[in-house]
Amino acid sequence: MKYLSRLKKLEAQFEHDRLDAAFITHLANVRYLCGFTGSSGVLTFSQGAWELFTDGRYTEQARRQVKSARVRVDALPPIAHAARAIGSRSKRSRGVVRIAIECDYMTLSLRARLTSELEQGIPRSRLRLIETTGLVERLRITKDKEEIDQIRNAINLASSVFPNVLHTIKAQVTENAVAAELEYLARKSGAEKMSFDTIVASGIRSALPHARPSLEKIGRGFVVLDYGVILGGYCSDMTRTVWVGRVDRALQDLYSAVLEAQLAGIAAVHPEVKAQDVDAAARNVLRKHKLDKYFTHSLGHGVGIEIHESPRLARGESQTLEAGMVVTIEPGAYVPGKGGVRIEDMVLVTKTGCEVLTPTPKELVIR
Amino acid sequence: MKYLSRLKKLEAQFEHDRLDAAFITHLANVRYLCGFTGSSGVLTFSQGAWELFTDGRYTEQARRQVKSARVRVDALPPIAHAARAIGSRSKRSRGVVRIAIECDYMTLSLRARLTSELEQGIPRSRLRLIETTGLVERLRITKDKEEIDQIRNAINLASSVFPNVLHTIKAQVTENAVAAELEYLARKSGAEKMSFDTIVASGIRSALPHARPSLEKIGRGFVVLDYGVILGGYCSDMTRTVWVGRVDRALQDLYSAVLEAQLAGIAAVHPEVKAQDVDAAARNVLRKHKLDKYFTHSLGHGVGIEIHESPRLARGESQTLEAGMVVTIEPGAYVPGKGGVRIEDMVLVTKTGCEVLTPTPKELVIR
Repeated sequence: MKYLSRLKKLEAQFEHDRLDAAFITHLANVRYLCGFTGSSGVLTFSQGAWELFTDGRYTEQARRQVKSARVRVDALPPIAHAARAIGSRSKRSRGVVRIAIECDYMTLSLRARLTSELEQGIPRSRLRLIETTGLVERLRITKDKEEIDQIRNAINLASSVFPNVLHTIKAQVTENAVAAELEYLARKSGAEKMSFDTIVASGIRSALPHARPSLEKIGRGFVVLDYGVILGGYCSDMTRTVWVGRVDRALQDLYSAVLEAQLAGIAAVHPEVKAQDVDAAARNVLRKHKLDKYFTHSLGHGVGIEIHESPRLARGESQTLEAGMVVTIEPGAYVPGKGGVRIEDMVLVTKTGCEVLTPTPKELVIR
Repeated sequence: MKYLSRLKKLEAQFEHDRLDAAFITHLANVRYLCGFTGSSGVLTFSQGAWELFTDGRYTEQARRQVKSARVRVDALPPIAHAARAIGSRSKRSRGVVRIAIECDYMTLSLRARLTSELEQGIPRSRLRLIETTGLVERLRITKDKEEIDQIRNAINLASSVFPNVLHTIKAQVTENAVAAELEYLARKSGAEKMSFDTIVASGIRSALPHARPSLEKIGRGFVVLDYGVILGGYCSDMTRTVWVGRVDRALQDLYSAVLEAQLAGIAAVHPEVKAQDVDAAARNVLRKHKLDKYFTHSLGHGVGIEIHESPRLARGESQTLEAGMVVTIEPGAYVPGKGGVRIEDMVLVTKTGCEVLTPTPKELVIR
């Protein structure tokens, strides 16, 4: 990955914002900038140098993974170690020291610790913590070729297990057993882990958009499968809804309406289009079918190192799409007491529109 | 679960601390207090009433799960919805309004949103956000009978799959395949999910305490397995280290030393003992064997709804143990370039000492 060029872009931003130093504490951002995958680490910039602070559990791993920053290990919590180092280094500097922090991820407790350690070296009167939002996320929102390749690999792996998962979906099998099979197949195919808790929701539980797989046995009705994998550090996300048992005309119509909305959403994806307009394109189809009140979430979200990234495709989101963004398109309709449908693909915004990355077919499968 | 009695205990604490309202935003605390398991929810207390704010995805689920608080659903983010409701309700009150927030979990961004919404109803001059730490965690640190039963069930499930996992550990099998098998067996046995990312680390990678399973094939040497499940919302955590191939006397001695340290740690667990002294009991054994420099993490941690809870068994932790606490005892020794060993049980602090909850044997298994 192009760690050095990412760091350079960020340094230019720091210069523009007149920042003397920065603490990157959100681990997905740390990974994006230097490749470190441990669960405890802080990446800092100060006086022209990048440093990764971690603890003794990750000494070997950090040295192996991180080439674009100096690795520093201590028994102190990384945030404290980093703050002491930068505080003491700034002792000799004069004037105000402006230090960027990530306020979407930094807790009040962490800031208190950070401040008290920094103040060992920098008098309070000269210390300014600058609350930033999206400093690194703005770089991450469009993916480069290497990232898109990783995302494709993750999507293809997840899609490749779907036909075999389908075989396990039948009456009398528990939702939990389907999830077990799905995750086993994904792992055996090389997935590092699932990108979020797998959803298998059958019958009237399919009307719960975020149901956990239960020990309920599958009966007649819809089964919603929503899952993804992580491969090479990048996530995939897909949803398919299948039908088990004797068909029901009204519920088949529900499926058709959601599929129509999903295709309308995909058709609306273009560079320069606002995120809210893509959401509206799908939502309007459901409104036409008088189903919009059952579509209780937003249309989609960016995917990358994290399963939920910018942009959000939702009402009120005026962010415009750009080539290189990777988003989900996932309308749903959830009728309480009856059942629900969700259909989700990942798409890449291209210069001329979009490319659907998820290869799995979307016709209603009846089992 | 005894939600009402937990809420009453907290109300007494609020009264003691002269708090007018509280925002519980950490989801594990929300679950502990009202049973809600969704990924988006804020539990609030104000003017004698508990309310759970969530979004449209969780309408049905929240109503099903939550009886001890009024469920309120809105398209707004729960924190904003909750703050507006409590701000507007407090309009008529006079004097200062003291509102507790959880500063270990609340981000700077969330607090900014919370404040701006609250100030719609409460003038800034009368609003006091009180930064609290461990308000709910102090209740959670000792487990009641029902919780201990749930934890036992989770531990027994995880231990029950271990013998079958052992069969899969052999030369030429990848770490990833062992993890896949392990997680599959756990799921099939009814686990809701794994309680953290499974660790399978073989050969010299066993010297990385937090290695992710890789596509490396297992060869001669140690294999560290560290895994746990969630069952009924409660976590388990265990580690076993096995040996593959022709034995190596020096590395077998490493194993014996870690086991001796682990038993010494367990023997030190008593009510009224300080957490740091339990850590020291195990660390001193490794020091005797000149291995303490290879023990690069702390001895253990509490386990419950979360995989890492209080107390921490570590140097400098003066917290005393109490009957009803459930902690891990997990010393390790990691020799770079050679290999590592970790052995971990969960134990329940009892009135007279402790009970080892993990039933899996600890003699070195050679495969």
